[in-house]
Amino acid sequence: MIGVFDSGMGGLTAIKQIVKMMPHEDIIYFGDTGRVPYGTRSKETIIKYSCQDVRFLLSKGVDAILIACGTVSANAIEILRSEFSVPIFGVVEAAAEKACELTENGKVGIIGTNATVKSGAYVKHIESVRPDIETVSTPCPLFVPLVENGFTDPEDRITYLTAERYLEDIKRFGADALILGCTHYPIIAPVISKVLPGVSLVNTGAEAAKRLFENITPGGGNGKIEYYVSDDINSFKSAASIYLEMPVGDNVFKVDIEKY
Amino acid sequence: MIGVFDSGMGGLTAIKQIVKMMPHEDIIYFGDTGRVPYGTRSKETIIKYSCQDVRFLLSKGVDAILIACGTVSANAIEILRSEFSVPIFGVVEAAAEKACELTENGKVGIIGTNATVKSGAYVKHIESVRPDIETVSTPCPLFVPLVENGFTDPEDRITYLTAERYLEDIKRFGADALILGCTHYPIIAPVISKVLPGVSLVNTGAEAAKRLFENITPGGGNGKIEYYVSDDINSFKSAASIYLEMPVGDNVFKVDIEKY
Repeated sequence: MIGVFDSGMGGLTAIKQIVKMMPHEDIIYFGDTGRVPYGTRSKETIIKYSCQDVRFLLSKGVDAILIACGTVSANAIEILRSEFSVPIFGVVEAAAEKACELTENGKVGIIGTNATVKSGAYVKHIESVRPDIETVSTPCPLFVPLVENGFTDPEDRITYLTAERYLEDIKRFGADALILGCTHYPIIAPVISKVLPGVSLVNTGAEAAKRLFENITPGGGNGKIEYYVSDDINSFKSAASIYLEMPVGDNVFKVDIEKY
Repeated sequence: MIGVFDSGMGGLTAIKQIVKMMPHEDIIYFGDTGRVPYGTRSKETIIKYSCQDVRFLLSKGVDAILIACGTVSANAIEILRSEFSVPIFGVVEAAAEKACELTENGKVGIIGTNATVKSGAYVKHIESVRPDIETVSTPCPLFVPLVENGFTDPEDRITYLTAERYLEDIKRFGADALILGCTHYPIIAPVISKVLPGVSLVNTGAEAAKRLFENITPGGGNGKIEYYVSDDINSFKSAASIYLEMPVGDNVFKVDIEKY
């Protein structure tokens, strides 16, 4: 049984990929909808919240954990791995390596939340595997609220102008591969592609799910998915289909995450 | 000593007004920067968080509390008043009454977070004092992240287009007074005025501070202000001046709000 968590709903983009590859695996998802977003918070707070998230998933008996959140993967994975003995997968390594594979001109762009870009995690991993590759990183803090508030139409003018402003440096730099360093961003990939035509986009949630698949032995379950959130279950149910492209059904429960 | 709290930094717009009117009053401010925003959360979560906020302020010995947050005032004030015996002032009543005073054509617009608009609190209060006044309410969920991420220049094209989209119904309705039902919104008042020229804007934090001033006996302190936040104090210090138009100094402390 795999545990997956995110600050909110973005991590559902990874669930979609896991279900495709491991249809029989049982999954416990936790989305911290009562405290989302994480990407604007300090490293200390991100660590505190993500330790609680992991403790909750362990209480459900998961055998491995996928951090389907760029901010947590970039800021807390080392501490989580040292605190807990369960195998923990993040989104940074797989996505960074995929970008190195995809780039032809050796220039990779990285976008993420403030906390993710500040951590330098993607850059450090790229430097360790391919020191010849150049990078430019830009925080895009308004992308998460744009996605969460439904500004997701590929023709949305406001989202386009925001992307154009944020991606100016990366465009000038001439990256031909871009890491979408936050699991919310694939939802507005069509808009990002309009600003950066021809640039290969790396979906971090999907890459992390593939890495997980290569590294664990499927648990042989019934493909049952349970969703836990820290705020209202009904608003989660209605919004989840944007990320998941399938209904979440009735397996949605509320959890008092502060107690973990 | 007065306690003031908000989900984050918006409530500092009320502090500015309190200091102007009661320069000798001691103030304890709490901004829940570790869990901001509240306006996208459920009523149940807003109540839970705001009870913790009040318990923290009471632990500091405050004599009265100003809820400098539209979302909490609209969703939790009745419960807070029934749970705690300290006088509690919110932003709804004073702002609603001010809008009734300002309107000449009897049409008042209300904007706020999703939770504030859903509560109907401003509309209910207007109906109770001036049933002849018509209202239209619109949630503007992207305004808080726009302000918090610095899209505050009066000429900002993205903020303007967002305001134009959100305020379309209110413009068509023909309101001549608009309640800025969230204490973040005064920061982008110049943009809102461009979309709705000639419309009187009601600053809820400032009106609430005036109402507080009319109803309490100043405590005769030294004008000392202490700021408490639930996330990193340094990011609070650097951002607070946008709202406060004065430096916060070194009186900023971190509190573990989940324990209250």
